[in-house]
Amino acid sequence: MATATNGRNWIAVDWGTTRLRAWLMDGSDGVLDKVQSDRGMGALTPAGFETAFLEVAGEWIDGPTRVLACGMVGAKQGWADAGYAVAPSKPPSGAHAVPAPAEDPRLEVFLLPGVSQQRPADVMRGEETQVAGYLAANPGFDGVLCLPGTHTKWVQVSAGEIVSFRSFMTGEIFALLSGQSVLRHGLEGDGWDEAAFDEGVADGMARPQLLTSDLFGLRAEGLLHGKDASATRARLSGLLIGVELAGARHYWLGQQLAFIGAPVLAGAYLRGLKAQGAIGDRTDAEAMTLAGLCAARAGLA
Amino acid sequence: MATATNGRNWIAVDWGTTRLRAWLMDGSDGVLDKVQSDRGMGALTPAGFETAFLEVAGEWIDGPTRVLACGMVGAKQGWADAGYAVAPSKPPSGAHAVPAPAEDPRLEVFLLPGVSQQRPADVMRGEETQVAGYLAANPGFDGVLCLPGTHTKWVQVSAGEIVSFRSFMTGEIFALLSGQSVLRHGLEGDGWDEAAFDEGVADGMARPQLLTSDLFGLRAEGLLHGKDASATRARLSGLLIGVELAGARHYWLGQQLAFIGAPVLAGAYLRGLKAQGAIGDRTDAEAMTLAGLCAARAGLA
Repeated sequence: MATATNGRNWIAVDWGTTRLRAWLMDGSDGVLDKVQSDRGMGALTPAGFETAFLEVAGEWIDGPTRVLACGMVGAKQGWADAGYAVAPSKPPSGAHAVPAPAEDPRLEVFLLPGVSQQRPADVMRGEETQVAGYLAANPGFDGVLCLPGTHTKWVQVSAGEIVSFRSFMTGEIFALLSGQSVLRHGLEGDGWDEAAFDEGVADGMARPQLLTSDLFGLRAEGLLHGKDASATRARLSGLLIGVELAGARHYWLGQQLAFIGAPVLAGAYLRGLKAQGAIGDRTDAEAMTLAGLCAARAGLA
Repeated sequence: MATATNGRNWIAVDWGTTRLRAWLMDGSDGVLDKVQSDRGMGALTPAGFETAFLEVAGEWIDGPTRVLACGMVGAKQGWADAGYAVAPSKPPSGAHAVPAPAEDPRLEVFLLPGVSQQRPADVMRGEETQVAGYLAANPGFDGVLCLPGTHTKWVQVSAGEIVSFRSFMTGEIFALLSGQSVLRHGLEGDGWDEAAFDEGVADGMARPQLLTSDLFGLRAEGLLHGKDASATRARLSGLLIGVELAGARHYWLGQQLAFIGAPVLAGAYLRGLKAQGAIGDRTDAEAMTLAGLCAARAGLA
């Protein structure tokens, strides 16, 4: 089995609120092995990170090992507080990584900072590493990267820097509304009605001031007209994404645009934008995270 | 102790999702006694309503007793499905009430229908009785009634009819965001910053398309600038109410306007509207519910 003992191998880690991914890497940034766990930072106390990490990746380690991690693991409630670079800024490299305390003498752990913005106040932690990965693959990129997720980010990138960015709580609000609000009663199953999504996007963009009313309308449509779950779910998503697209308009209108995210979610954004005459590419988020960790590792002392 | 045995006394009931209120009434609609319980319909199966009612109001009953109830107790998952009157419509009276099944031969239970609207699809159940109570006290009223709550209603009333209405999920979304989203971390205590509320209303009204971004901004402001809980809570409420006021504009602009609701919540709406040059009265919701039940009782066969 591959281990990190040869002194050149290292471990790349993407440690978010709900999930931990780790890759055993060789000295040329080739992937030797990979693990994934649901031990996200949200469920851990600061003292629990080392134990959790060793449970997940311990069998790779039989000597001194470097670990470079990005994501919420570097938040104030994380393994250690890795702070933020302040935009405009290049994505933080290994030179800015903060050491995390470890009892196990074999572990040398570094955490990448996030990126913050003063006005309007905003923060990212993890996405900056995906931006770094995208820039490593597309060094001349000048435009906007959209990273859909729990807190979707729109990031203006120029000359290798994160110039400005804006987050939207679209994903978290969708999860709360579909799982815990009165709307959950109309959402059995997991179907998806593309036409209802399109209509939701159009309505959300055209009249964002009616969002919280249109949301209640989903419940009423279910009660009065038997609107089915797949149309309800798709319209709910469409309304939220439509409002976001209206708010993020200057991030996508007339811009070079690329999405970093899962196919289904990024596809929903791209479909919504297509109706506005905007187009964009899509790149896989996990691949960009790993590429960003590799790019950052080059900066470790 | 007062009971319902004299054949003229009756019991008025307001039975919502989370709460049950009942009043023992004399034949002239004077209140003889009152009870309240947290046995809302949301926690009951259809078979459980009679038992729950007798536990709460049973000691009033020692002979044949009429009961008239409004609210979610008349929903499909309630004691019985009381259906809806379809707007435009007068608030349903006792003549439209639906009998609910009871094993106890002393009980004669009637449930008031809600009101529905076909386009845009909308429903109310309980608020129509408050509207009836308001109209009983203000028979010539022509204007808009706003009933703030979990699902705030704006109701256009003319010639004694509910002409049209629109619901907003403002209250439920506030509860979800402040209790279960990432924003809960910045909301310890129960303070309230009036200036932050005003700014939130103004921002929500002026740029509703940025709602889900401004919400995330509350988290970022807490992390970066130490924004305190009372400012965060008040701005959160202000943003949601501001978006609603923008969406409900044609319901309040240039209209005779009255609020039926709790002082703090109705006061927040009134404060938001005052900045727009709109004014309105406020009336107590519980008093209007009881007045509406009394008005409806006159129509029982």
